[in-house]
Amino acid sequence: MPSISEKGLQMPASPIRKLVPYAEAAKASGKKVLHLNIGQPDIRTPKEALDAVRQAPITTLAYSRTEGSAEYRSKIAQYYAKHGIAVEGEHIIVTTGGSEALSFAMGTIADPGDEVIIPEPFYANYNGFAQANGITVRAVPSRFEDNFALPPIPEFEKRINQKTKAILLCNPGNPTGYLYTQEEIEQLTALALKHDIFLIADEVYREFAYDGRKHHSIMTQAGLENHAILVDSVSKRYSMCGARIGCLVSRNKEVIQASLKFAQARLSPPTLAQIASEAALDTPEQYFTEVIGEYAERRDILIAALEKAEGIRVANPGGAFYCIAELEVDNAENFAQWLLQDFDIDGETIMVAPAEGFYSTPGQGRNQIRIAYVLEKDKLKRAAHILEAGLQQYNKA
Amino acid sequence: MPSISEKGLQMPASPIRKLVPYAEAAKASGKKVLHLNIGQPDIRTPKEALDAVRQAPITTLAYSRTEGSAEYRSKIAQYYAKHGIAVEGEHIIVTTGGSEALSFAMGTIADPGDEVIIPEPFYANYNGFAQANGITVRAVPSRFEDNFALPPIPEFEKRINQKTKAILLCNPGNPTGYLYTQEEIEQLTALALKHDIFLIADEVYREFAYDGRKHHSIMTQAGLENHAILVDSVSKRYSMCGARIGCLVSRNKEVIQASLKFAQARLSPPTLAQIASEAALDTPEQYFTEVIGEYAERRDILIAALEKAEGIRVANPGGAFYCIAELEVDNAENFAQWLLQDFDIDGETIMVAPAEGFYSTPGQGRNQIRIAYVLEKDKLKRAAHILEAGLQQYNKA
Repeated sequence: MPSISEKGLQMPASPIRKLVPYAEAAKASGKKVLHLNIGQPDIRTPKEALDAVRQAPITTLAYSRTEGSAEYRSKIAQYYAKHGIAVEGEHIIVTTGGSEALSFAMGTIADPGDEVIIPEPFYANYNGFAQANGITVRAVPSRFEDNFALPPIPEFEKRINQKTKAILLCNPGNPTGYLYTQEEIEQLTALALKHDIFLIADEVYREFAYDGRKHHSIMTQAGLENHAILVDSVSKRYSMCGARIGCLVSRNKEVIQASLKFAQARLSPPTLAQIASEAALDTPEQYFTEVIGEYAERRDILIAALEKAEGIRVANPGGAFYCIAELEVDNAENFAQWLLQDFDIDGETIMVAPAEGFYSTPGQGRNQIRIAYVLEKDKLKRAAHILEAGLQQYNKA
Repeated sequence: MPSISEKGLQMPASPIRKLVPYAEAAKASGKKVLHLNIGQPDIRTPKEALDAVRQAPITTLAYSRTEGSAEYRSKIAQYYAKHGIAVEGEHIIVTTGGSEALSFAMGTIADPGDEVIIPEPFYANYNGFAQANGITVRAVPSRFEDNFALPPIPEFEKRINQKTKAILLCNPGNPTGYLYTQEEIEQLTALALKHDIFLIADEVYREFAYDGRKHHSIMTQAGLENHAILVDSVSKRYSMCGARIGCLVSRNKEVIQASLKFAQARLSPPTLAQIASEAALDTPEQYFTEVIGEYAERRDILIAALEKAEGIRVANPGGAFYCIAELEVDNAENFAQWLLQDFDIDGETIMVAPAEGFYSTPGQGRNQIRIAYVLEKDKLKRAAHILEAGLQQYNKA
């Protein structure tokens, strides 16, 4: 039998993959499972987006342009202008989700053996794209006690060497919910310029900033034009994760040229989803006011419940819709499995994501979970209660 | 300014990319351009597929499962059963186009520095996926005079070494239109088993076999279960290239497990397109009878016109919807550019794909073009006339 590649063997599995069979068994046994384990919101997709697909006069569902249509890219540029980001359509490549933008960015800036520095914990799939491209991830620990704020710049500098091609950050952060301050973005800008490396920012949660805080994009940083690569997506913004449309944005022409060649190999992003995504740009402001208000309330309910709970500490997120909670357990994955397998309240239990998969330093985050507050408030209250009561019973047993 | 990767610099551009600005200029000047350069058929997408999307009761456009829904995968398995291919849903991973299936297959079977053998000329994007994965392509020349039949097996064996991980073929072939015989598939099967390497087949044109010929899938070969990887797509079958849905199929569990990890990194294939693709499986047989009859007529018209034409030789394709024509020119790319820039008949010209980009042996195919017969018969007749008349004028000048 022929052997598969080392790369394939070493690809990391999803942090929740081991739990999936337990969730399925729980459902098969009649339990209801509240999913806090994945960033799949229950928020409705804007009607504008769905209607555009329903009404599109398609007779042959044809390829779109490799880089997305000129119209759509120009409308995306207008969206960015509203957020103080000055780019043109030519700086944008439409991708199949933010995922593909990340994959293109990694292939464009690094060869096998090169390194990318990422504050830890980080979105687990960064590991997957790094592994697929033969890139080594160098993690810089951020601290639970600081709500996962930017680690001190000397911690980054310690890890920069000849092989370092970029710093990658997620702002606001998945899985931390941390929203970087203007000062932090300026520090990273200075660092990238000093060492002449790329700064890649995954800003797919841009709109989800709470308590009146402002999002600071790397794309607004003067002098960073050739160093900044933005990864974006419609998934969370318009609650259309299933569309699989995102984009890569850079004012660096070489980056766009090379990324375009990666894009050409896969022909084009999905046409139906581009129709929906272009129409989504016409979503009324009221939608965001409501959605962001809703998430802020959910966050307040969840954080308040967890802060009161015995055996649970929680970091306070300023954006996105995730938080990291530290539990009084040795191994949060075992506990998460137990919640699915052996616990329920009135036939209902929860699924959470063990946080260890968001760390690349071995052993880190083993007592932590990531909670996505993507469920309506009543469910979220029940979920917090199930977590607290489950933890007590687990620790008594 | 930070430098981009060697990989990015060396990514091959699309074979038609250089011509695109000339096509745009031609259109801007008021010329009509008949596109024979890309496999984008004008055939209508089955109504079943488009209606399913229009009528889908979606309020939140959510992620699908990473590997595609159980229902869709099980329906795909039924489709294969009808073609004599015995697989179950668990052997199938739904991908974002055949492109992604190819990309997963390459990452799963080969590490950087490994080699894949491909009969030449071949689909140009195989080079892109190989380059993105650090894989070296070893081309085995097939002959225009044989209509690009399988090269002799000793030619493959000469190129097999410790680094060889797979043989990749496209059946029927893009850009050649060659449909492999049962004997050829059996020879390749024996070769893969003898050297214990993978046999990857891109069978996205499976249905498009003419003159009563039968398609022979690698998936029907006894003993090849652990060595066969099938790459497939809905793009051509249902004329829905813009859906971007395909699949990777293998009975080798390690292949599926590793490919699934690559798939997890990008979360899921596009949801709207999966709805369309699942419904497309209910397309009535009548659709295929009509479509395949239409393509066969187009082929006949095109081949007859080219065989009569002075200065043109054409290889006779048994499947897919491409043919390779050899022209009495030194450089077909210059001629293709000239057709766009300096030639028209009654305001109309054609765009063809220079075939050099489908060869990896330097200098090969320089006097050849690939013609996609994806236009209706009247347009195709005009296109063949434009090609012939253009060639005469070009060679007089």
